[in-house]
Amino acid sequence: MNIIVQKYGGSSVADTDKIKKIAEKISKRVNEKLKLVIVVSAMGKTTDNLIKMSKEISANPEPRELDMLLTTGEQVSISLLSIALNEIGVKSVSLNAFQAEILTTNDFNEARIIDIKTDKIHSLFEENDVIIVAGFQGITNEGDVTTLGRGGSDTSAVAIAAALKAKCEIYSDVDGIYTVDPRLHPKAKKLKYVAYDEMLEMASLGAKVLHSRSVEIAKKYGITLYCAATFSNEEGSYVMEENIEQPLVTGLSVMDNQTQVVITNLPVDYTFVNKIFQSAANENLNIDMISVIGNGSSLNISFTIIDDKKAKIDEALARLSKDYGEYNVHYYSGFSKISVVGVGMRSSSGVAAKFFKAMGGIPVKLVTTSEIKISALVEEAHKLEAVKSLTDIFEL
Amino acid sequence: MNIIVQKYGGSSVADTDKIKKIAEKISKRVNEKLKLVIVVSAMGKTTDNLIKMSKEISANPEPRELDMLLTTGEQVSISLLSIALNEIGVKSVSLNAFQAEILTTNDFNEARIIDIKTDKIHSLFEENDVIIVAGFQGITNEGDVTTLGRGGSDTSAVAIAAALKAKCEIYSDVDGIYTVDPRLHPKAKKLKYVAYDEMLEMASLGAKVLHSRSVEIAKKYGITLYCAATFSNEEGSYVMEENIEQPLVTGLSVMDNQTQVVITNLPVDYTFVNKIFQSAANENLNIDMISVIGNGSSLNISFTIIDDKKAKIDEALARLSKDYGEYNVHYYSGFSKISVVGVGMRSSSGVAAKFFKAMGGIPVKLVTTSEIKISALVEEAHKLEAVKSLTDIFEL
Repeated sequence: MNIIVQKYGGSSVADTDKIKKIAEKISKRVNEKLKLVIVVSAMGKTTDNLIKMSKEISANPEPRELDMLLTTGEQVSISLLSIALNEIGVKSVSLNAFQAEILTTNDFNEARIIDIKTDKIHSLFEENDVIIVAGFQGITNEGDVTTLGRGGSDTSAVAIAAALKAKCEIYSDVDGIYTVDPRLHPKAKKLKYVAYDEMLEMASLGAKVLHSRSVEIAKKYGITLYCAATFSNEEGSYVMEENIEQPLVTGLSVMDNQTQVVITNLPVDYTFVNKIFQSAANENLNIDMISVIGNGSSLNISFTIIDDKKAKIDEALARLSKDYGEYNVHYYSGFSKISVVGVGMRSSSGVAAKFFKAMGGIPVKLVTTSEIKISALVEEAHKLEAVKSLTDIFEL
Repeated sequence: MNIIVQKYGGSSVADTDKIKKIAEKISKRVNEKLKLVIVVSAMGKTTDNLIKMSKEISANPEPRELDMLLTTGEQVSISLLSIALNEIGVKSVSLNAFQAEILTTNDFNEARIIDIKTDKIHSLFEENDVIIVAGFQGITNEGDVTTLGRGGSDTSAVAIAAALKAKCEIYSDVDGIYTVDPRLHPKAKKLKYVAYDEMLEMASLGAKVLHSRSVEIAKKYGITLYCAATFSNEEGSYVMEENIEQPLVTGLSVMDNQTQVVITNLPVDYTFVNKIFQSAANENLNIDMISVIGNGSSLNISFTIIDDKKAKIDEALARLSKDYGEYNVHYYSGFSKISVVGVGMRSSSGVAAKFFKAMGGIPVKLVTTSEIKISALVEEAHKLEAVKSLTDIFEL
């Protein structure tokens, strides 16, 4: 049995006309004698609207009940898509998470998939050509409904593909993965191949094509992902183990609204450094571009946060300061983080030199590197200049 | 453990403000050391909107998938109500049908409850004061989602009350059961007690306070139902085994838009009569006030249907006429059916005499009777006059 898993995002099922179009698209694949598992997100802004209603009632909705609420969005889209497929003569059936037996942890709102039973899917394929599974949701061993966090439908699709050892196609309103966000650099090229590791670095940097957890699972189980636009026949991008084309740098990504936090004159005491990051983690603050520089009798620390988290990190640091002596905290807001990513960096030298050459006279506030990535913090005023210069030098 | 089952209709949970008000109302009962099972319908017009979407895709949506779609409405309202209760410190948890184990037949769109397991509800009451169960929905042994038909939330509530041997309170935007629809007769009296059988006759006649299936279950298991307005402290009505007050006639109900179908000059052949009603049943046409009068060498049949089903019954009769000889069909539209109901009729004579006395000079086109009911078909122009006269004579 030749099974393909396809996932359609919320904008692809935003209204009943689009749902009918997707049904037509799916029926063409059925005619190729394929069996399909379709994972869909909630229609358009449904999830946002459900969250809005819950917030009208409670600033902090009970997490279990919030998941009970949010999972209705996907149940609406799977049943409508199944109605559309049956209407055009394609035998299909929709399954929510408890029916598809997508077992998760009981971490409501951010559950992780533990196991997916495939018996039911296999037996339903005896009488159906298409099985539509609700994305984003799962079920605990106790029968409670969970969600996988925003963007979790990608994760659902890849995990089901892994369980079925099937290919996985992710359709959205973006027609593939680009070297650079085309809105920043109109000449950006579409990538035919991207390695898992590159995608992981790019996803966490804001390339919103794929949820990073889904790429982690694809990497773990060796599932090739195909990302393309829902309503287009143009070829998309493949995410796989190795980047067949092996360019030095595969892509460039940009994150705006970065605040640099600089703490100077700290005692040389790493338990305190640890406490800073621990207290940020307790507040769910995402800290990035961490750099710690010892300077004889004192330590300087620098890291970045999203601009609108400045007040929160300031409170956290103020609470810590009671226990520790004098130190200075400075905030510099309005920066952009620009990163270049490529598995080719592993085996090539001179990438950093090329990077700084491209940056030319642009003042760089902070630089961090990983094995396959270099990131620099620049003022937003210099962003486009840096993007142009980097895409030129790395031929993106 | 003192458990009460309460049901709130769709207009009672139409928006988040109303949901918060219901949470407050429930919390007062929790303070009286009661444990509550709350059954809620979908918010306001949700079910209608879901049906509308499905109709945009298919004129005849696949029944299993339609149920998958419609059950989301109740899941939204139960989770929002649970969020509201937890927000004000009332420990509550919401359950959809598969979690509450409401087992039904697999007659999608019109499933019947087979069994309700109460183990989970009892064990959840150890840590919660309120358990909110999705009305209208069930689950088959195979794990498919079903619905109980429109108005099915009443049935859910009464069936759960029967399973828990608990009292059952039905809240809606109507503050009880009246002798006559107050819109027809402003001096209509609210009934404090109504017998199950009276309610069954009135429910099927259009007194839209309770779904008739729910009254059947209440009767079978001897569950007393209390019907009252959600947002009022005024006392409502009790539906129970015997009507404690035992009036001769308890209530009067009116159904408009009736068409009388008269078939004359039929052969004395009851297989044909049977075929007429069978072909109407095949078309899902609800036939009422059936009257068959033999007249020597021919039969006359009269029955009523809703005005807008006239074309459908005409088609059905035309198909039959090929196999049978000459007969005449006449349609008379724009009638109202007026019925008086009362268990007191069983033990009293003279009710029919009083009924016809009240009708006075009003032309009555058709009369049918049951043990506890008399119905008459009158022109709509005479409706209000008949209602006034009957309510006066029977002191309604």
